Amino acid sequence: MYPFSLYLPTRIFGGENCIDNLPAAINSYGKNILVVYGGGSVKKSGLLDRVRNLLKDRMITEFSGITPNPKISKVREGVKLCRDNKIDVILSLGGTSVLDCSKHIAAAVGYEGDPWDLVKDPSKIGNCLPIFAVMTMSATGSEYDGVGVTSNEETHEKLMIASDKLFPVASFLDPTYTYTVSDYQTASGAADIISHVFEQYFVLDGNPLTDGFAESMLRTVFQSTPVALKDHENYEARYNLMLASAFGCGGLLAIARAPSPWPCHAIEHELSAWYDITHGAGLAIIIPHWMRYSLNEKTAVKFAQYGYRVWNIQNSGDVNADANKAIEATADFFRKIGIPASLKELDSRITDEHFEKMADHISKAWWDLKLSFAPIDRDGIVTILRNSL
Amino acid sequence: MYPFSLYLPTRIFGGENCIDNLPAAINSYGKNILVVYGGGSVKKSGLLDRVRNLLKDRMITEFSGITPNPKISKVREGVKLCRDNKIDVILSLGGTSVLDCSKHIAAAVGYEGDPWDLVKDPSKIGNCLPIFAVMTMSATGSEYDGVGVTSNEETHEKLMIASDKLFPVASFLDPTYTYTVSDYQTASGAADIISHVFEQYFVLDGNPLTDGFAESMLRTVFQSTPVALKDHENYEARYNLMLASAFGCGGLLAIARAPSPWPCHAIEHELSAWYDITHGAGLAIIIPHWMRYSLNEKTAVKFAQYGYRVWNIQNSGDVNADANKAIEATADFFRKIGIPASLKELDSRITDEHFEKMADHISKAWWDLKLSFAPIDRDGIVTILRNSL
Repeated sequence: MYPFSLYLPTRIFGGENCIDNLPAAINSYGKNILVVYGGGSVKKSGLLDRVRNLLKDRMITEFSGITPNPKISKVREGVKLCRDNKIDVILSLGGTSVLDCSKHIAAAVGYEGDPWDLVKDPSKIGNCLPIFAVMTMSATGSEYDGVGVTSNEETHEKLMIASDKLFPVASFLDPTYTYTVSDYQTASGAADIISHVFEQYFVLDGNPLTDGFAESMLRTVFQSTPVALKDHENYEARYNLMLASAFGCGGLLAIARAPSPWPCHAIEHELSAWYDITHGAGLAIIIPHWMRYSLNEKTAVKFAQYGYRVWNIQNSGDVNADANKAIEATADFFRKIGIPASLKELDSRITDEHFEKMADHISKAWWDLKLSFAPIDRDGIVTILRNSL
Repeated sequence: MYPFSLYLPTRIFGGENCIDNLPAAINSYGKNILVVYGGGSVKKSGLLDRVRNLLKDRMITEFSGITPNPKISKVREGVKLCRDNKIDVILSLGGTSVLDCSKHIAAAVGYEGDPWDLVKDPSKIGNCLPIFAVMTMSATGSEYDGVGVTSNEETHEKLMIASDKLFPVASFLDPTYTYTVSDYQTASGAADIISHVFEQYFVLDGNPLTDGFAESMLRTVFQSTPVALKDHENYEARYNLMLASAFGCGGLLAIARAPSPWPCHAIEHELSAWYDITHGAGLAIIIPHWMRYSLNEKTAVKFAQYGYRVWNIQNSGDVNADANKAIEATADFFRKIGIPASLKELDSRITDEHFEKMADHISKAWWDLKLSFAPIDRDGIVTILRNSL
């Protein structure tokens, strides 16, 4: 069991109409608010109007057009807008992409150089604007962590900006705002939550407390996703997914555990940087192949534990067989919620052309994957990519 | 599933030697530090010397002699000391009692009236001194919440002081500091953690995510306590208990759940206020009697779920029988870790003399117990007290 520090300063509001707490929560943070959003969905749903009404005594500047896998060029644009309008607070309305872009802007406003520098050297992050987040998707856990991900379209990089200062001051989780999320995005978001949990569950040294937390997260997502897909306005299923999303990334599941890097995240980030695919869907394709690649004498026990506790697989006495069942249950789940079966099916542009380059970049830019749950090298990454194709 | 807000601003440091993070963490909070502790154990263990050494560039004022079930008279004494020495920060070294007393002092220094007022009317809590906590026991979760409990020896009351402002800025959980905790205190602390989880688990309306979190907490404590009692210096068992303690009370287990009041806590607080017994031990005696009293057609399903998931009881098809097994497994556990079997055995002074008064006070001072998992009235409380005698 490892040393750790856990810091989760965001105030989380959950439940229908929890946005009514926004005016009181934002009150002491200033008059000039940058409201960041993507396209028309927050207009169509009425969320933007509701926010305008809740904050009618404030100066609001709107910044829209944030796309999935937000781009550094958009961050630069937002920074200029903040400076021109003397923005005090950033309010993100949307999913992870909008929030991640908001975080990068919040950090870059107080920095004189180019915003991309902050990704390369987090020590350059100084004062950040306070961030408030109204979530309209359940996915990455950005609502309860200090991390954002930005893509650099010039360098084909997709990297994290991370700082304790980038935790939202408050996040608002109203399940009804996720009713209109498409099937594909709901499934991709679920895959994203699952991948965050796996990342912290399949490690070299865990502990019973957070193993149990992780298993509860997984059971909840596996049970709630099909319900939410069948009945888009199922309040309980949508609420469960929002809660699970929030606890995926902030550190709760990582306490007192070995810091084992997880290759799937790195692999998917490379794919997204080259092909701009949906993060969660890419992960869901890679994960079963990573599991199959990683199953061995040492790792079978944990895969089997996952099967017994999360999938209610009966202990057959054959750990390896039980581990295999758990892996195939995972692959089945992703198929059943409508995730494409291969990278090619996800995006016909994808070929093995850049796989070697991706593996090289992972070896350089990410953590040492030899320390992961099942050690893996550059060639192993290429193998998983080819199997996923 | 209910609306909620969750706020856990404390920074938690965990693991052996995590106290080395204290100087950096406390750095910006001021020069004058009140170090609060109980008796000689922090001297004997070397913790006090280590803290003095870590903070040797600060002005330290010591305040010792904090007893279990800390008294309002001691709070008044601490407040005077803070004012006389222009204290900037309070550093608590010890278990819950020391930390709870520290919290009450931190809140009362900025208040002109009597500190007991703040228990009766939390709206009177203004600015609070920042609190840092080095824990030497696993029990109440005070290290990760904004609540303290103080006894008023004149009025026989034991009540909470609660405010978001009373979360410690940082808490330090080094399992090795709990190696010298006696068997009885280890067992009582475990009972306290368990009771906090039950309080949030046995509610009218839960959700699968936090049900699973709670079940993981319970399994961890049920497994780790006997190990820690057998081998006092078992790092993993002690670490597990410290982690479980931290998440017992801050709100994590209560998100999106019905706010159902739990009678056991109220009953035990009455007993402590009259007889100054150990909180956790009192709870462990009462809990099985509350469970037996509360088992009925409606509640059996949840008691059985608890049995299946926490005690690995096989589903017999008879929910009521399975629920009973789970209840008796709980009673067995408390017996096996050395908790006295009855209130009389715990403290020979206890008779039924004040039971009616206690039940009256609970009806007045606590939440409406008719809204609890199994509704209970004044007579029900007297029944549980008599059965526990």
